[in-house]
Parts: sequence; C-alpha cells; structure tokens
Amino acid sequence: MHFSPDELSTYAEFAEKLADAARKETLARFRNGADVSEKSGPVFDPVTDADREAELVLRQMIQKHYPDHGILGEEFGEVAGSSPWRWVLDPIDGTRAFMSGAPSWTTLIGLEYENKPVFGLIDQPYIDERWTGMGANARFCHRSGRKEIRTSGLKNIADARISTTDPLPSAYFSKDFAKAFLRVADAARVARFSLDAYAYGLLALGEVDIVIETGLQRYDYAALLPVVRAAGGVVSNWNGEEPGADDRGELVASASQELHEATLKLLRG
Amino acid sequence: MHFSPDELSTYAEFAEKLADAARKETLARFRNGADVSEKSGPVFDPVTDADREAELVLRQMIQKHYPDHGILGEEFGEVAGSSPWRWVLDPIDGTRAFMSGAPSWTTLIGLEYENKPVFGLIDQPYIDERWTGMGANARFCHRSGRKEIRTSGLKNIADARISTTDPLPSAYFSKDFAKAFLRVADAARVARFSLDAYAYGLLALGEVDIVIETGLQRYDYAALLPVVRAAGGVVSNWNGEEPGADDRGELVASASQELHEATLKLLRG
Repeated sequence: MHFSPDELSTYAEFAEKLADAARKETLARFRNGADVSEKSGPVFDPVTDADREAELVLRQMIQKHYPDHGILGEEFGEVAGSSPWRWVLDPIDGTRAFMSGAPSWTTLIGLEYENKPVFGLIDQPYIDERWTGMGANARFCHRSGRKEIRTSGLKNIADARISTTDPLPSAYFSKDFAKAFLRVADAARVARFSLDAYAYGLLALGEVDIVIETGLQRYDYAALLPVVRAAGGVVSNWNGEEPGADDRGELVASASQELHEATLKLLRG
Repeated sequence: MHFSPDELSTYAEFAEKLADAARKETLARFRNGADVSEKSGPVFDPVTDADREAELVLRQMIQKHYPDHGILGEEFGEVAGSSPWRWVLDPIDGTRAFMSGAPSWTTLIGLEYENKPVFGLIDQPYIDERWTGMGANARFCHRSGRKEIRTSGLKNIADARISTTDPLPSAYFSKDFAKAFLRVADAARVARFSLDAYAYGLLALGEVDIVIETGLQRYDYAALLPVVRAAGGVVSNWNGEEPGADDRGELVASASQELHEATLKLLRG
C-alpha cells in the first residue's frame, strides 16, 4: 500500500457525501410505486429506477471530483481509471427487499486501492443507519448517535446467529450449496433470511455471527470487507481464500477466527 | 356486535398508550445484549427479557384501566374477563429477528369483542413505524407522518410479492406445507422471508401482496386481521375459513379477493 491515511480519510468523507446524494434518489422511490423492471437473462434480478438514477448521480460526483479514479458499478459497468483507486458501487443492494417494502436494502460504496478494498460504507436510508469501515476503525451511525462497533467475537457455533439471503436452491444458490449452508444452519442457534448486505452490517454490530452467500458480484461485497474486518470479523470465500479467488462469488463472514474455521469445515462437509 | 364506535375508539387510543409503554421495555433491550433464553420443548422459541417485561407492563395497564376485560398474552397465558372484550398481546413477535438485531420484530396488540378481532395494532419501535386497523380504517404512522393505507389490490399472481417467515421445513412448517408454499412462490414474482408479522404490515401498505404462514397462535395473528382487512386485504386459513377454524395455525393474507382465491387454489395443489 502506498497511500497516506489522510488521503484515505479524505475519500471516506467524500463517500459519506456520495451516500447522502444516493439517499435522495432511493428514498424518494422507496414504498412509492417505483417502476420495477426485470433484467433479461435467466437469473431473477429486478432493477429499479432508483438503482439507475442513484448510480448516475454517484458516477457524476466521482468523475467531477476524482476524474482519474476508476469506477465499477452494478448498473453501468466499469470505467477504468489512471490511478490505483477504484470506487465500487451498488446503489441498491437488495432490490427484491426494496420492491417488497422491506427496509433491509442498502447502498454500498467501496473503495479499492490496487484492487484491494480499503474502505467500505453500508447505508440504510429509510431507517437512517450507516456503517463505515477502514483499517481497524468500524463505525455505526443512527439517529441515536455514532459509535465504534465490534463483532460479537463468538467462538462457539452452537450459539451462533446465522444468515443467508436465499435459503432455497435457486439461480444464486445451487442444491449443493444449499445443503452446505444447511449443515452450518443445523449446527447454529438461529437462522434469518433475505437480509442481503444488511446482514453483514448486523455482523459488524455484534448481532449476527455468521453470514454465508454465493453468487455475489464484486459490487455486492467490495464495500462489506473493510466494514466486517474493521469490526474484528473474518471474511473469505468458502475455501478460506480472499473473496474473488473463486468464480462462484462465495463469501463467508464470521465474528471470530475460531468461528470462521468451524464454519468453513462444515461447509466442506 | 353490540358496542358503540366511541367505545372502540377509546380502546384504540388506549392501545396506542400500551404500545408506547411496551416500546420502553423493548427498545432498551434491542441490540443491547438482551438475555435470550430458550423455552423448553421441541420447537425453537427463544424468549427475551424484553418480551416478558413488556407483557407485564401491558397487563398491569389493562388490569388497572379495564379490570373486567380478558387478556391473552404469549408469555403469561390467559386471564378470563367478565366483559366481551379481550386483549390479545404479543410484546415481541419475531423474537428470532430481535435476537439477530433485525428490526422486523413487532409488538402486536389485538382487541377482540366476543372472540372476534375488531382492532389491531402492529408496532415497530426501532424504525418508529405503527400500523392500526379497525373497521375500514387502516393507518400507518412513521416519522414522516400519519396516513391512510390500502393494499396493492393486485389480482394477478404472476406479479405478486410473497412472504413467509420459515421457507424451510421446520417445526413450524412441515414438508407438505413447505411444498404448498413453494407452489405459490413459484407462481409469484418475488419471495422474501423471515419478516414475521412485519410482512402483514407491508401487505397493508401495498408493498407485499401475499403472506402465507402456519403454526401461528392466536396472539400471533389476532392483531393482524383488523389491520389487513381495514386496508382492503383478505385473510383466512388455507381452506378459506376464518383463521382459527383449523388447529394448524394457518393464515393466508392477500391484497385482493381474486388473488386470495388464486393463492388458496395453489395451496390445495
């Protein structure tokens, strides 16, 4: 890494402005009869006006302030940059939650340096919750104030609260993967579903202990890694490698190293 | 029915005070390391301090103001009354959401007259959302204000947003019931899980179109019926009968009569 902490802090402040701008586009359309159209292709992947409009606003802001930075976004693909910095954007993670009125969708803003995520922001505008993470500094903001956060640190899987977005075999989650998830869920205390990236925020808050997913794209998790790691959590793919090392979009996040190893062992079967 | 609208309005106002009092007990313990212990018995049914303390407060308030009213609550059973009125209480519906930090748990306050639910209140204290329903009057309160609400009125199941709390076969949801649910989910547009009673609030708001459950107790749904019906929705058990007619705790709620009939047909297989 060859950047100064001050430079990263400047970008972290800018990311909060990006999230504020995205809120205007998303909140105006949440529970407001937003036009929800389906993308083509075999995977069910609805996308709303809010998603597109918010991403356009974020791209314009980044290109205006940091024209040499790269951008990767869910809706409008990649723009290569001439600097080592790249913004990774998902204006609405959890579009199915959004279209069902459930306030677990989030805006994800990640920042990479030489392809490594170094800052992440998770925003839930309707509830007014925001997570940020960089280095060993994880923060949560809510109406009630701003605080430093840590994972639960739980080590024993029998006490774990576990989450995944799609518990049923689907285009995202094959039958084998669903079985592997169930092995972990059966060993854990309680499982909750359909939370998308919000579940990783709950993990960073110490409220959920394990999150397991597959079928994720870079923009689905680039912002999550710095938040979970800054809060003391552990994240890898299902083989224990850096996320992105496989081509199945696997992610496992855990509240502690011990819990992570126990989870990976159960996933392997 | 032999009560005046004024009498019901008085009780509806009192119910809001009950919900306010419950908030103090639940919010103080949400995401705050609340002691979560497991009830005995084969079904996983965690119960928190918050659940018990809130129910005690509600019972005390009701017994003080309306000593002749009956009370049925999740935590402390039934107290028979000498009047036709009975309060049906679930201080925390969605205890698994509560213990996982997910703000989809709710406080449910129902009021029955001669065993028929005539008023319902659904409260989500952390987000600050409250639904009430009686007669043809359904309301939603949020920080942004108070408004009258209606279901989506959707008729075509292919466009439906569907929800159930437990999509996997479990103690609540047998393999046959899970299969029946999947027949409806496969016909619908999108399915979201783990929302408990919050899903019925989303249905009353016009954001979810079908909710299907089994294994519910009276205190899980008594408050929901007046809210869904006041918003124009239809509620029955899986046979189209009044909820409670079976002993399996079945509930189906739909945004319109047409959608309800299509859903019941698919559930029958």
